[in-house]
Amino acid sequence: MSKKSALHISKGVEDAPSINPRLRVQGKASLGAEELLAGIRSGDLAALAQGITLVESSAVKDREQARVLLSGALKFSGNALRIGVSGVPGVGKSTFLEHYGVRLLEREPEARVAVLAVDPSSSKNHGSILGDKTRMVDLGKHSRAFIRPSASGGALGGVARATKEAMILCEAAGFTHVFVETVGVGQSETLVAQLVDCFLFLAMPGTGDELQGIKKGIMEMADVIAMNKSEGERRAAAERSALEIKRALQLFAKGHEDWITPVTLISGLEGEGFEELAQDLERYERHHKIKGLFERKRAEQRLFWFERSLSEGLDRLLAGMESWNTAKAALREQVASGALSPFEAGEVLLERVRRNF
Amino acid sequence: MSKKSALHISKGVEDAPSINPRLRVQGKASLGAEELLAGIRSGDLAALAQGITLVESSAVKDREQARVLLSGALKFSGNALRIGVSGVPGVGKSTFLEHYGVRLLEREPEARVAVLAVDPSSSKNHGSILGDKTRMVDLGKHSRAFIRPSASGGALGGVARATKEAMILCEAAGFTHVFVETVGVGQSETLVAQLVDCFLFLAMPGTGDELQGIKKGIMEMADVIAMNKSEGERRAAAERSALEIKRALQLFAKGHEDWITPVTLISGLEGEGFEELAQDLERYERHHKIKGLFERKRAEQRLFWFERSLSEGLDRLLAGMESWNTAKAALREQVASGALSPFEAGEVLLERVRRNF
Repeated sequence: MSKKSALHISKGVEDAPSINPRLRVQGKASLGAEELLAGIRSGDLAALAQGITLVESSAVKDREQARVLLSGALKFSGNALRIGVSGVPGVGKSTFLEHYGVRLLEREPEARVAVLAVDPSSSKNHGSILGDKTRMVDLGKHSRAFIRPSASGGALGGVARATKEAMILCEAAGFTHVFVETVGVGQSETLVAQLVDCFLFLAMPGTGDELQGIKKGIMEMADVIAMNKSEGERRAAAERSALEIKRALQLFAKGHEDWITPVTLISGLEGEGFEELAQDLERYERHHKIKGLFERKRAEQRLFWFERSLSEGLDRLLAGMESWNTAKAALREQVASGALSPFEAGEVLLERVRRNF
Repeated sequence: MSKKSALHISKGVEDAPSINPRLRVQGKASLGAEELLAGIRSGDLAALAQGITLVESSAVKDREQARVLLSGALKFSGNALRIGVSGVPGVGKSTFLEHYGVRLLEREPEARVAVLAVDPSSSKNHGSILGDKTRMVDLGKHSRAFIRPSASGGALGGVARATKEAMILCEAAGFTHVFVETVGVGQSETLVAQLVDCFLFLAMPGTGDELQGIKKGIMEMADVIAMNKSEGERRAAAERSALEIKRALQLFAKGHEDWITPVTLISGLEGEGFEELAQDLERYERHHKIKGLFERKRAEQRLFWFERSLSEGLDRLLAGMESWNTAKAALREQVASGALSPFEAGEVLLERVRRNF
């Protein structure tokens, strides 16, 4: 992204207090929400990390503090460009983010880069996503960067919520670019797409068979595609794969709002093609802002999360009632075997709720 | 489908009483559920039509009768092969169904073909889907065929439910093949895919641009693809388009359970390629039955509809409470503008429900 674009995105950042690393509160034990917010707003990364831990906490004593913190941070949020980064394991997401992030920080003195990870399976110790602390070393030690591993395990909805709230805090801290890295395992991408402005999909050269990893409709969600690992002797294969993807996109892409998903060849390792990719991302942002789609998408995303948290909350509420669970399990069995119509079973169960109102 | 396959599918049909058209009850006013079921089981098409009207009815006085009818019919259902047929408007779904259905009836003396339509937009008078009574004339007048236009308008979930219940009645009436025709407009296909054993997608030859109609992930749901309108001078273009689709499928198809979605050239108008298509469908059925996937898919579908009718029912229940609606609308506004976090808004609303329990 050009400097001009970054300034455009992060117009609120100019008002934010400048960051003085010496003022950073390191390792302080449980600050109150007000203090945390002040620390976060001053760009204190330790306060930011502590704030994220607070909003991730499920302890009852933390919930009210988290609520105060988030509601205070919310009005300073929204100024970053949010970019989802996805692709199959091994495609080189971390290497790409490391080099792309550092390049962005070097080119744009006002830029600040945060990387958040969404990995609902992390409790199962897949391990490769940000779990390894030796990853993104150069980016991690940059004073204008912040890297946060995924909230551990938990339901996907919970992980997505934690990521959304971490994003709010990062934006309140003045970050101009928030990258959300996701493992390429189905459902998580669908939710990440609802968290970001732009969904960047990393592919890599290969035969049709090797490319199968990009099935499952993930590529349909891609706003921008980068063919990674296109360096050296892989170049020709990368060009073929890119062509194949472009052709397939004609048939399958979402292709709405006059946006044609670009496919660019890059090397995350060598830093090749970053200029073109930056232009793709910038063009995406400009295209959507000019057409008013940028803000509309964000408003739609907010409503998506509202509806989702409502329906998840209702499920949780009902699942907490033992009589409901027992009745539902018995009905599910009858429905699965075909003994009872699914619709009639639904009505039987709903009648229980109705009687409670 | 070969005769062998049809017999295999519809093993229950042999036990069904044979159909005597003279016994048909024509135009009788509102039979009771028991009489209707007896009529339906005897193959009386007027009773079947009346039964479907009953289960589609939202009148309170009809609900209990409908429940009795469905619960009686349920144990005789499940013996048909259920095939979803989709494709963009103009691809020739009705023409295909007319000719394919007639051919099937001619080849298989035991076959009985029902065509149901799902068209959530029919109230808006798009009109082309079965609305025009002059369509499928030959199939419609066949004694072993039954054609039913879509339940008018209404919410998609309601239309899907009506279709599912009409299907149960058709199967109780001894139909061996139930085709569910759908208009090619997004969401409806997703639901139809949950109603059928096999999803047949009709495409037509064209350039990438013309093929754009197959976007939106619909093709991803296809179990079998037929390139329609491949007759005469279009043959070469059809072959090119089929190749393009096959290539794209390698990248985007669901490709699970070792099933590779076949693409066959047909002409619904001329009846060309029907033999190959019948083989594709038969191979799909055999493949899935051997692997036990056929029954598993149906069990999963039943649970899908159970969960869906539960969540729709809960929504309806809450939407019927004025205080809930008012509170929700106010919160939605705050969420959309970004003034309130979607998650916090969700909790505020859930608290209202919690207090009611």
